[in-house]
Amino acid sequence: MAIEANPAKSRATVSESNRSRILKHLYHNGISSRAQIAKALDLTPAAITKITARLIEAGVIEETGDIEGSKNRRSIGLELDTARFRIIGIKFARSLVQIGVFDLCGNALSLENLPTVYDDTIDDTIAIIHERITQLLADDPSIVAVGMAVPGPYLRNEGRTAVVSSMQGWRRINFIKEFSTAFRVPVFTEQDARAGALAHYLFDPAVHTEANLSYYLLGEGVGLGVIDNGRLINGYLGAATEIGHISIDVNGRSCDCGNVGCLERYCSTPAIHDMLIEDGEVVPGAAAMTHTDAVRALFAKAREGDERAREMIREIGRYVGYGCVTIFNGFNPRHIIIGDIVAEAGPLLLDEVRRTVDERSIPELNETTSITLSTLSADAAVSGAAAVAVTQFLEHPSMFFDVS
Amino acid sequence: MAIEANPAKSRATVSESNRSRILKHLYHNGISSRAQIAKALDLTPAAITKITARLIEAGVIEETGDIEGSKNRRSIGLELDTARFRIIGIKFARSLVQIGVFDLCGNALSLENLPTVYDDTIDDTIAIIHERITQLLADDPSIVAVGMAVPGPYLRNEGRTAVVSSMQGWRRINFIKEFSTAFRVPVFTEQDARAGALAHYLFDPAVHTEANLSYYLLGEGVGLGVIDNGRLINGYLGAATEIGHISIDVNGRSCDCGNVGCLERYCSTPAIHDMLIEDGEVVPGAAAMTHTDAVRALFAKAREGDERAREMIREIGRYVGYGCVTIFNGFNPRHIIIGDIVAEAGPLLLDEVRRTVDERSIPELNETTSITLSTLSADAAVSGAAAVAVTQFLEHPSMFFDVS
Repeated sequence: MAIEANPAKSRATVSESNRSRILKHLYHNGISSRAQIAKALDLTPAAITKITARLIEAGVIEETGDIEGSKNRRSIGLELDTARFRIIGIKFARSLVQIGVFDLCGNALSLENLPTVYDDTIDDTIAIIHERITQLLADDPSIVAVGMAVPGPYLRNEGRTAVVSSMQGWRRINFIKEFSTAFRVPVFTEQDARAGALAHYLFDPAVHTEANLSYYLLGEGVGLGVIDNGRLINGYLGAATEIGHISIDVNGRSCDCGNVGCLERYCSTPAIHDMLIEDGEVVPGAAAMTHTDAVRALFAKAREGDERAREMIREIGRYVGYGCVTIFNGFNPRHIIIGDIVAEAGPLLLDEVRRTVDERSIPELNETTSITLSTLSADAAVSGAAAVAVTQFLEHPSMFFDVS
Repeated sequence: MAIEANPAKSRATVSESNRSRILKHLYHNGISSRAQIAKALDLTPAAITKITARLIEAGVIEETGDIEGSKNRRSIGLELDTARFRIIGIKFARSLVQIGVFDLCGNALSLENLPTVYDDTIDDTIAIIHERITQLLADDPSIVAVGMAVPGPYLRNEGRTAVVSSMQGWRRINFIKEFSTAFRVPVFTEQDARAGALAHYLFDPAVHTEANLSYYLLGEGVGLGVIDNGRLINGYLGAATEIGHISIDVNGRSCDCGNVGCLERYCSTPAIHDMLIEDGEVVPGAAAMTHTDAVRALFAKAREGDERAREMIREIGRYVGYGCVTIFNGFNPRHIIIGDIVAEAGPLLLDEVRRTVDERSIPELNETTSITLSTLSADAAVSGAAAVAVTQFLEHPSMFFDVS
């Protein structure tokens, strides 16, 4: 049931909206004739001719050879060449920053990890990011935007993160002030798991036509992005769908956010790292490792058949499963796609997640919801950072090209 | 960020969309001239003239006297008379059914409670509902639709409820088959708390321009309806935002839905009733009462100053508050409006809710989210049942009138 308000649209926004609809049609459907576009979008042939002429002039789309039209008539095809435009995607986590260059379909052309970030090296990391972006933009004129994915809760209008449990230093960083006007191309920022949901929506052939999907990020934080009926759930400040701070036990472990029993305190990499340090045996020397290295050592041990390591993964899987049950009852998506470092545990984890969900979820929801591990070639949040910018490119073309 | 798919619109749906936009403009803004509407909606004067002529012909809107236009020119006003069309709203709960007649602004013209429903009287209740609707429609030709609000999780495409914890009998009822074509007017059904959110969105002067609000239903069940950025969150099957079945304690009380620690097991009227029976003192004879009567007896005792009754309400308030913290982190609304029977506990409950939220929520969310008790004159779910139909009336006018 759509109950949207009626924003008073100016004529300029109507033209922009039609430009956007044409670009999205070409993005999702590939080469199409003007007549096909006119029919699909219920626009007049005259309007199509006018708008596409300007997009061709601006170099955004181009004419291809003849294609098969209706009634066997040949007509000229139009194409948005998704390899011609490139996007920088950057994923921020507590201690990890990844930078990649992607085409409009989310294919990674390059991908690099910056040095591990500590509370006292955040300023250095910010300086390196500026440098790398500047260099990439200088080297490649086809880059048209930068997308950034940051840990939630991300206050989108303010440009900063509300709480980053294990690393308060990032809260000082205002992403909008720091980056938005620093480069020759626009910069867009989104909460990381929401970026991951966009990545699957735009780039994942297995689910990209699904209007109800969620990306469940299990890494240095625990996050969630939900696309409900084709739209991201954002909340008033952009802080909705923060599954990591939803309590699964009101008498449980305390969290820096103020809440008690936050899911993040049970199945993020810092929580698993704590578990390994306390255990002391499964991963010897865990205390001296980074969160990621310690967790990967656990997963390696489990793959070697170590029963205690396997039992720990099953315990983590139960908590991940409790989170899935909350996602079922909170958001009722069609797909839950699990990604980030904890997902590297693979089928052993996923089996326990599914067992927990089988026990605790409403049968009708269990029957109709798939739970899978992300199979995107790059991490969904870093390709998702690019997806955030691709979405803007398709939604607001006049920000990127002179189409007047 | 809107990432909606591009449904191929037919010309007929474009006209319907413009009719709907004009009706919604008149509904939300009152008497307006054709020129004002044209400007606000970016439609041509010719289109406005054509569409409004048909709406006048169909008796949906009418011309009023001259109104002040721009540049001091007088022009004719158009009006959607919100008192001229009426809607039947029906709220189903486990044991309570309420039927009301409302105008388009949610004012109750009549309101009645049916006899308490038990598992073995459901069929009788269904028969009474058919009778009452038929009678009301015969008596009042201005009734144009019936709206129904049913406990969630409501599987909207199937037309039935997935789980009704304390009363499995309702699961047999297929609301679509039972009612949708039984009367001379269309029937629309929605999950009860979602209907309550729509009631506040359309009928509550305090919040109705807010695009981010939630209605938190605390009655025989615990439910939630969320409007995010002007749209209801539904989920794939219509079973999203089921706060009552989100666990607050994965080691807690079992629920009929399969989950453990469901919020509903701690602060619904059946849960409070259990608490009173176990206590045995605060409300003597509670075991022989209905849930509602027992809970109201507790509230009356607290108002008389009984300290043990007041402490029980504070305990309930803490659980309601845990639910609010989950709503903050799950949906980040601008307003949480608490309604239904448990809200009758009043300020004592609300104070404890706010204290809990102050302790456990992310500060930025706490500062920007209001939590209040519903002040609609009729229960939000029964006026919400009407709001469900009003939304359809404004969204799909051609279902109600011949406007071709």
